[in-house]
Amino acid sequence: MNSDPDFEAKQKILSLLDTGELGGSGRLPSERALSERFCIGRRRVRDALAQLEAEGLIWRKQGAGTFAGRAVDPTGALAARIAGETNALQVMEARLCVEPELAALCATRIQPNAVAQLRALAGRMDPCLPNPENELWDSALHRLIAEQACNKPLLTCFAMLDEIRANADWVAFRARARAPGSFQQTLRQHARIIDAIAAGKAEAARAAMQAHLTTRFIALRDEATEL
Amino acid sequence: MNSDPDFEAKQKILSLLDTGELGGSGRLPSERALSERFCIGRRRVRDALAQLEAEGLIWRKQGAGTFAGRAVDPTGALAARIAGETNALQVMEARLCVEPELAALCATRIQPNAVAQLRALAGRMDPCLPNPENELWDSALHRLIAEQACNKPLLTCFAMLDEIRANADWVAFRARARAPGSFQQTLRQHARIIDAIAAGKAEAARAAMQAHLTTRFIALRDEATEL
Repeated sequence: MNSDPDFEAKQKILSLLDTGELGGSGRLPSERALSERFCIGRRRVRDALAQLEAEGLIWRKQGAGTFAGRAVDPTGALAARIAGETNALQVMEARLCVEPELAALCATRIQPNAVAQLRALAGRMDPCLPNPENELWDSALHRLIAEQACNKPLLTCFAMLDEIRANADWVAFRARARAPGSFQQTLRQHARIIDAIAAGKAEAARAAMQAHLTTRFIALRDEATEL
Repeated sequence: MNSDPDFEAKQKILSLLDTGELGGSGRLPSERALSERFCIGRRRVRDALAQLEAEGLIWRKQGAGTFAGRAVDPTGALAARIAGETNALQVMEARLCVEPELAALCATRIQPNAVAQLRALAGRMDPCLPNPENELWDSALHRLIAEQACNKPLLTCFAMLDEIRANADWVAFRARARAPGSFQQTLRQHARIIDAIAAGKAEAARAAMQAHLTTRFIALRDEATEL
């Protein structure tokens, strides 16, 4: 048996990772709690955690704690896991729930210089560009609106939905659902959303986002019916 | 150098985990893609994946794929990570966005036997019970409404918000925000939500949920102001 106290500290903490008692988030107890639980000094706990981190067995996030496993992006992980249990229409239904409210909050909270950024992103969309590139500008525009709403939980919901819809199959599906003329309509609708946000009109921003997503929802539904 | 082909297959797949090229979700390519990329037979890829899974280096989820790391609950991981970057009022604002829509969808999609389950859960809340127990019944009621809305992405958003609000500090904060008489009001509001859902009235269900959460939002905001 190895009686090196540094080794023992590491093994005791490692044993926590294997029992499953950390719960769904994989978050470890605090340094102080580990120190008390295993009767190890704080300094030794800290050293053991640093070693485990260097070995890639745990990772830390400022302000949130220490977690088992590698630092993967949980938003992406969540999106990947539910992508197989949902479809493009459900995602659009969810966006119709979340994004009009984000647009309304954005209208009351946006920082002055962000309005110009919104217009710049909207201006990058161009019917001459390949569709995937336009999808990226579109996504960046919707994301900036979500960020400027200043609500971290709702931004996280948005990010999760956006990750699902970035799925390659769905990009192709959406491209098929684009009727001639719908591109110009999208540009006009984006302009209306940004105008309402720039004017600080929350209800107008909500309605404009709702109208925009409803247009897309109907196009997707019609395309899905024809499959 | 070890020239055992089984060992080599495993090492090649392991090398993917270390490069970071798997992206945020940590999802591995399909068996077929791994087979083609590394010029290894499908059978050998499958055996290597099974070994890596047994060693806890990857895990699989039916219908979603194979992922690097341990199987942690990404909803819990996401909630834990953003808990430090948000507050109870932001979470309530997000619930006010998501849950009225979930109630409306639930009213049009709920399975007949689930209405009785909703009433049973609402009936378990009792002012004589300790507050944490009532919080669990309350959470179970809201979750069943979210499940019966039949939209996986929105259910995932709800679950993430619910995990954040289960944070122990916030439970205490909410308990302080409960004025005398507010418990009976909560019971009446729950009954109104369930009645609207049972009657299949989407707009009434939405309005009842909105009224319920708004009451709680105002109580929390007043408590926060007094801190």
